[in-house]
Amino acid sequence: MSWAVIFSSQRTDADPAGYAAAAVRMLDLAAQQPGYVGVEDARDEDGFGITISYWEDLESIGLWREQAEHLMVQQLGRERWYKSYHLRVCRIERESSFEQTANDG
Amino acid sequence: MSWAVIFSSQRTDADPAGYAAAAVRMLDLAAQQPGYVGVEDARDEDGFGITISYWEDLESIGLWREQAEHLMVQQLGRERWYKSYHLRVCRIERESSFEQTANDG
Repeated sequence: MSWAVIFSSQRTDADPAGYAAAAVRMLDLAAQQPGYVGVEDARDEDGFGITISYWEDLESIGLWREQAEHLMVQQLGRERWYKSYHLRVCRIERESSFEQTANDG
Repeated sequence: MSWAVIFSSQRTDADPAGYAAAAVRMLDLAAQQPGYVGVEDARDEDGFGITISYWEDLESIGLWREQAEHLMVQQLGRERWYKSYHLRVCRIERESSFEQTANDG
């Protein structure tokens, strides 16, 4: 059974270059954490975005939350980059997927 | 305790008008379902998107999945609109939020 951390956020207009650099760096750092499974990310043109990170267990989520560089970036996020955000830690109970097969037409 | 259904999808290029109309209609229909809490949605310019619907309980998620018009639209989604998708049913274990206060500067 794995876990998902849903991070829904509304960006400010501030510091797009700093934000973009930090976002890339955080994806890179997260992927090096113990228990990391993967990440999905989508952001609208109006600055509303959803980032979901997937983890093997709750302990891994706690370690990532307290990772030193990540803590600094969380602080910058609150000061500069996010108007608002919502964070939800979830246990995945069921999952399924679909892949389109090659089309005849 | 509430629940989240994470729907991560990659759009095809097909039928953008039909897709857009169905998306609006489904958001509207979902909001009329018992146990509906809310929805969040973001899609990148490259067609990767995340839609999360929130529900009071697992039973409400089951009713929505089997809703007649929704079933037809799920079928169209697999035939036309989605290259691939991943569906995850999750129990929300913790949540927190942040709202930026007015700036002095």
